[in-house]
Amino acid sequence: MTVRRPIVGVMGASRASEEHLRHARALGRLIATHGWILLTGGRAEGVMEAAASGAKEVAGSLTVGILPDRDSPVAEGVDIPIVTDLGDARNTVNVLSCKAIIACGVEGAGTASEVALAIKAGVPVVLLACPPEAVSLFQRLGRGLVHAVHTPEAAVSVLADRIGIPLHAPWPV
Amino acid sequence: MTVRRPIVGVMGASRASEEHLRHARALGRLIATHGWILLTGGRAEGVMEAAASGAKEVAGSLTVGILPDRDSPVAEGVDIPIVTDLGDARNTVNVLSCKAIIACGVEGAGTASEVALAIKAGVPVVLLACPPEAVSLFQRLGRGLVHAVHTPEAAVSVLADRIGIPLHAPWPV
Amino acid sequence: MTVRRPIVGVMGASRASEEHLRHARALGRLIATHGWILLTGGRAEGVMEAAASGAKEVAGSLTVGILPDRDSPVAEGVDIPIVTDLGDARNTVNVLSCKAIIACGVEGAGTASEVALAIKAGVPVVLLACPPEAVSLFQRLGRGLVHAVHTPEAAVSVLADRIGIPLHAPWPV
Amino acid sequence: MTVRRPIVGVMGASRASEEHLRHARALGRLIATHGWILLTGGRAEGVMEAAASGAKEVAGSLTVGILPDRDSPVAEGVDIPIVTDLGDARNTVNVLSCKAIIACGVEGAGTASEVALAIKAGVPVVLLACPPEAVSLFQRLGRGLVHAVHTPEAAVSVLADRIGIPLHAPWPV
Repeated sequence: MTVRRPIVGVMGASRASEEHLRHARALGRLIATHGWILLTGGRAEGVMEAAASGAKEVAGSLTVGILPDRDSPVAEGVDIPIVTDLGDARNTVNVLSCKAIIACGVEGAGTASEVALAIKAGVPVVLLACPPEAVSLFQRLGRGLVHAVHTPEAAVSVLADRIGIPLHAPWPV
Repeated sequence: MTVRRPIVGVMGASRASEEHLRHARALGRLIATHGWILLTGGRAEGVMEAAASGAKEVAGSLTVGILPDRDSPVAEGVDIPIVTDLGDARNTVNVLSCKAIIACGVEGAGTASEVALAIKAGVPVVLLACPPEAVSLFQRLGRGLVHAVHTPEAAVSVLADRIGIPLHAPWPV
Repeated sequence: MTVRRPIVGVMGASRASEEHLRHARALGRLIATHGWILLTGGRAEGVMEAAASGAKEVAGSLTVGILPDRDSPVAEGVDIPIVTDLGDARNTVNVLSCKAIIACGVEGAGTASEVALAIKAGVPVVLLACPPEAVSLFQRLGRGLVHAVHTPEAAVSVLADRIGIPLHAPWPV
Repeated sequence: MTVRRPIVGVMGASRASEEHLRHARALGRLIATHGWILLTGGRAEGVMEAAASGAKEVAGSLTVGILPDRDSPVAEGVDIPIVTDLGDARNTVNVLSCKAIIACGVEGAGTASEVALAIKAGVPVVLLACPPEAVSLFQRLGRGLVHAVHTPEAAVSVLADRIGIPLHAPWPV
């Protein structure tokens, strides 16, 4: 039988601070532990790489990477690389495929675009350790879709408890 | 001979306030007067429609609309409708085709995504009458690419004087 | 007043034979003479370049190029370069924006994809000097949408007479 | 450890003949048995649905569906639905993500576009039970990339033996 596990996105900068990288790794681990599929931008850099690595520490984890092009190195933790060759237009694919996304900082314009596109598409967003002006702008634009938290644990709690993404057993069931 | 006139984008909400609509119309007029081609999201709503209408008040103006799909009504002021069927992924096309974009308010998440995508792509952005948290976030992310102004005239001055987009005679030369 | 002139696409190989290049140049000229806007893939190569050059021999012509990325040189005859950064996904934009497309040979897989995407989207196709197996395949798939001709004049006649694209005065009216 | 299993695409019509549906189901089963990930267009119709169902008959199979939009019903056999909202521009994503694709008939223009886009991208193609004019056209365009076969078993043999896609143990290893 098909096991359609929820997909959760983790977005963040390719050149991220130590704090955000630590958060990303924890998020990957927590998402995998909840039995969710992790989706990232797939590249072997920054938050994308850290989140995928974190997930792969958990047995039964499953990770998808939506690559901007065919030349970008793929993060080692990505099980399923989807190659788009769409450049930044692939950011819409990232958010539309997820039940919710977590922005692990808003250190780059790419992440900001993904948060905005998620809001536009009605996909819930959790802003993890983001600066106040980002929280303020996106909560005004997001009208209830946007949550701000300070720890990876709180981010995943919002997904499970407030957004209601159901827990799954790790693969295989 | 080919006349490659600079293309300038005006982005803004489909449901915009009166102030932003007035600004958009003025921007369209000023852009056309400078001999630039106006590019918008093309739909018959809000800032897109107002900017296109403003441009078409000027003889020799030329307007391009990048439509998200085939079903959206096209603004009357659009000379050249480009149909993408890419949904919000067309936002990258909007910004990549322009020498610079002007955000006529950041009232919706679509506009916020376009500002972020422009920064990501290295396309200069002018924020016209935008809230302080948007200015603060995007100027931090944009490192010199993002200008904030309060009037349509100032927006167009930034494009001509600071960004250095050359004036052209209105079509035909 | 807005002048919404019909947009007609000319598709073909970047490395085209002499015959197809001659056809492309003639098509550009004829399309411009009919007052239609010419749309191509925009690059400074092959059929794209030849068609745009042909159109610009006609006073009042208007040409749009839908570029795959920001690095491709733009054909000199393109008035309005639209930059997509979508790679070959921009082929759908090419066909959706046109009232009809003319395939000037099917010498490359890119052109074949555009013919197929046009059929899928319900956009009429004229195959100009295409090999019999291409005509046979696409007419079977196209169920009445696909016409085969041997000269540029016949291609444009099909557009004007059978498909019914109205003639316009060259710009400006 | 990350298990990067090869991804193989099966493309075909949403309204397919009985023969092609039977083939698609067999292909899904064979691909899963080889430990490859099956990728399809994801919708609950025709070849897409049949291939995904076939794969899910095999324990440890993994199936990805690249959906054109958010409204299309997802085939029950799809484990990982990737939502693009790109319309037919998603066809490039389908082919770029695969080591090779199998066209299960060329009954529709969408499949023809995917074969052409695969050739353009250098992705090997197997044409299964396709009409002679399609084989002739695509082999001419594909210069060695395009193989024609008559049975699902032969299609998968080409992938394993001639294209050299390595076999994997079914998930989990």
